[in-house]
Amino acid sequence: MEKDLEYIELFEIYKDLLTEKQRELFSSHYLYDLSLSEIAEEEGGSRQSVYDAVKKVKKKLSEYENSLKIREKNNLLKALSEKTKDGETARAIREIIER
Amino acid sequence: MEKDLEYIELFEIYKDLLTEKQRELFSSHYLYDLSLSEIAEEEGGSRQSVYDAVKKVKKKLSEYENSLKIREKNNLLKALSEKTKDGETARAIREIIER
Repeated sequence: MEKDLEYIELFEIYKDLLTEKQRELFSSHYLYDLSLSEIAEEEGGSRQSVYDAVKKVKKKLSEYENSLKIREKNNLLKALSEKTKDGETARAIREIIER
Repeated sequence: MEKDLEYIELFEIYKDLLTEKQRELFSSHYLYDLSLSEIAEEEGGSRQSVYDAVKKVKKKLSEYENSLKIREKNNLLKALSEKTKDGETARAIREIIER
């Protein structure tokens, strides 16, 4: 579940780099909570093929994060904005994260 | 020239998302300063085909930046680290950018 949340965060960051099909698949499973079997039924494929496709999307998301580290940096910046005593800088950091 | 520097910065950030071939092409032209004709001669293609391929790489880099805004955020963070009077936070911001 923790791991799922991590992928959902990565999806929010990197979804523009996925294909339309991959975005639909990921959303169906992780955001709209459809089971692999339900998606397979809808798409007319097998549960195994949906499983493989979801696995491929997750691999892509992990690769993007390994290369670009946006999630990691956002988390470090968030922690920094909570730690600094300079309120204006803290606000500015949060604004940059949200862009 | 200004524009070239911008693409070189984008290349440094997003190069892992390009193919090996695209990385070679971009490096030859922008980092090793080979002309399009020189690259065409080396590769055995036409100058026009090299021009088109370089243009495609630049378009890719711009698309990545439009989606992910890493360069824009890095520049904002750099400016913020120079502006803040909190030296420790400034250092921490620069360390995060460099990751």
